[in-house]
Amino acid sequence: MMQAISSNEIIIIEEGSVTLPKGYKAGGMHCGLKRKRLDLGYVVSEVPATAAGVYTTNLFQAAPLIVTQESIAKEKKIQAIIVNSGNANACTGEQGLQDAFAMQQGFANELGIQEHLVAVTSTGVIGELLQMDKVINGIKQILNKEHENENNFLDAILTTDTCVKHTAVQMKIDGKTVSIGGASKGSGMIHPNMATMLGFVTTDANIEQEDLLEALREVTNQTFNMITVDGDTSTNDMVLVMANGLAENNQLTKEHPEWNTFKQGLSIVCESLAKKIARDGEGATKLVEVQVNGGYSQNAASAVGKAIISSNLVKTAIYGTDPNWGRIVTAIGYSGVPIETNAIKVAIGPFTVFENGLPSNFVEEEVKEYLESENVKLSVELNQGEYSATAWGCDLTYDYVKINASYRT
Amino acid sequence: MMQAISSNEIIIIEEGSVTLPKGYKAGGMHCGLKRKRLDLGYVVSEVPATAAGVYTTNLFQAAPLIVTQESIAKEKKIQAIIVNSGNANACTGEQGLQDAFAMQQGFANELGIQEHLVAVTSTGVIGELLQMDKVINGIKQILNKEHENENNFLDAILTTDTCVKHTAVQMKIDGKTVSIGGASKGSGMIHPNMATMLGFVTTDANIEQEDLLEALREVTNQTFNMITVDGDTSTNDMVLVMANGLAENNQLTKEHPEWNTFKQGLSIVCESLAKKIARDGEGATKLVEVQVNGGYSQNAASAVGKAIISSNLVKTAIYGTDPNWGRIVTAIGYSGVPIETNAIKVAIGPFTVFENGLPSNFVEEEVKEYLESENVKLSVELNQGEYSATAWGCDLTYDYVKINASYRT
Repeated sequence: MMQAISSNEIIIIEEGSVTLPKGYKAGGMHCGLKRKRLDLGYVVSEVPATAAGVYTTNLFQAAPLIVTQESIAKEKKIQAIIVNSGNANACTGEQGLQDAFAMQQGFANELGIQEHLVAVTSTGVIGELLQMDKVINGIKQILNKEHENENNFLDAILTTDTCVKHTAVQMKIDGKTVSIGGASKGSGMIHPNMATMLGFVTTDANIEQEDLLEALREVTNQTFNMITVDGDTSTNDMVLVMANGLAENNQLTKEHPEWNTFKQGLSIVCESLAKKIARDGEGATKLVEVQVNGGYSQNAASAVGKAIISSNLVKTAIYGTDPNWGRIVTAIGYSGVPIETNAIKVAIGPFTVFENGLPSNFVEEEVKEYLESENVKLSVELNQGEYSATAWGCDLTYDYVKINASYRT
Repeated sequence: MMQAISSNEIIIIEEGSVTLPKGYKAGGMHCGLKRKRLDLGYVVSEVPATAAGVYTTNLFQAAPLIVTQESIAKEKKIQAIIVNSGNANACTGEQGLQDAFAMQQGFANELGIQEHLVAVTSTGVIGELLQMDKVINGIKQILNKEHENENNFLDAILTTDTCVKHTAVQMKIDGKTVSIGGASKGSGMIHPNMATMLGFVTTDANIEQEDLLEALREVTNQTFNMITVDGDTSTNDMVLVMANGLAENNQLTKEHPEWNTFKQGLSIVCESLAKKIARDGEGATKLVEVQVNGGYSQNAASAVGKAIISSNLVKTAIYGTDPNWGRIVTAIGYSGVPIETNAIKVAIGPFTVFENGLPSNFVEEEVKEYLESENVKLSVELNQGEYSATAWGCDLTYDYVKINASYRT
């Protein structure tokens, strides 16, 4: 797992996660919010960590997000995160806010640290008050050794996910080994602008807070905000980064000679976590990637990618392995971007299917066979400039309908 | 059917359509584009009619739209419409454009009128050239008496529709009976901004063209542009209005004392046709109406309505008769409109489900039972102003996926 890393080289450690960087521990348990599965988890740093977060733009921000944002604002540091699943603590009014503060307070007490150093997150059903007796009881026990296990944390944060989602990278900064680890959850109600997904990123890097926040926002715009499962943006989305400095590198700032290496590492982690969410979209059988090149602006390239990946008709066609270039072209046409209809080129995998305003000559069976894969890539060349964007999503299947016609969120 | 109509009164004639107003005939036949069903249709006026149209905003406008827009621009009149289904003649390049002109020319010849007086529309599969031998052959025969039948026209324009869609109204203008009749088609790929739907409206009103166009645009914004089935906006949408003046009223303009009566009649026809499309959404089992009141602007009210009606999670919940207010609230929260989260009230049918930032006390079984209906109404009070909007759509079902994972559009 540990290899000699040369300067600027980033090693990907797929099996790693939030406890790979120095000085972090994590755990999880079942406190009673779910029937049997783990539903309460934590990440704790030995020392307070520089912190940055990005939050849903949904106007009905859930109580835990309000608590977390207020807390981080105080000192720009956190030392712990307490998470529950099974209940989003959203649309819960004044009581919900009190409950989120109580979770923060309870966990801060157990750790013997100041309250504002504890971030709170929740995910699950909307509009029901937390069963606080169970939550508080769980918080009192969760630091017990038997619950300490990174896998427990990865499980405890899930809702309709079918699998855990994690990754990690390592690099050298100032000759020191710096790690970035991440975990995420998300499956349904996923869309750019932070749809019910939670992302937790830890690093032992020593890094200046404002630059960390800026990097997080930029990377989020290219990763978490470029995935969609069903077009709905939830009340609870959040990505939190903790940087505890235990790697002892010289403080990273945008001026640091190895800043780009760190930023790329953060990008690799977030992209990986985001794609795993897209792939785990409710009912999905395929991960779909849309690569857009030649946009006249970043927004243009992104908008085209998102229009395609969000189209119910494109998604169902992919599910049916139908080389339906017409729906892809139609989506480009309503993306809101003033493209040149005759300049566009569209490909499904390696096969060009549309060019110069007309469908290309392609062998339907070949393209259909390509679409049988679990990984489908669509490419669009806009021929209007130099900007690129990648968007990820999944196919739209019967199971999506089945899951969502009966799950109470 | 014919009743004494008093001033300002509008009579709805559900069984009526495009040939109810004076001086119109319509017909349809099978020319061979589809396997068996009717696929070529027409509407003809005895005399040239003042004309107005609205067209898709999709940048890949199909060939027939280009031909029609150019033609109407010449004299602001048309006398006939020729329609084919089974092939959209979209993304067909130069040849497609020639084919659309050939259809126009062929039908103009049969009628003995100038070419620019013939509008052309197509609907169906994208990216395949029209089988012009069959189309031209059909155009040569279609005026034969055996094909003349309003029902034939209503059938000939359909694609994945499960039923014909038509209505008509009558009113008195200057003591003269004025009729407005309409027909539409549309089922899949439906979304505001004119998704694969065609609307044909005829009237015998004598009306000034620019005011007619303005009325059409306004009414379209409140009707056809407020429906959604799956969020995709197609390449072929169009609504055409013909007004041949044979009712012999004094010319209608915005200054005419009975202008509002006419406009309301046009609105009733377009709303009815639009709702029928929404109800016939691919796989739909329910018509869903979202009524938004108290918006601070027209756009705000519309945006909230459209966000809710377009949400896959709201649509699947309705399919599953799940009183899932949380998803409705979430959709309002990401609509892009700066609403006041604590001021909003949401109701499912007659049951308030959300108010003052919290879920209301409602009996789940009662609301669930309400959702079993084929007609579901959601109401939102924003409490920010005086503007209202209504949006229509349908539920998202297994059949939607089934239809679209295998239909080549």
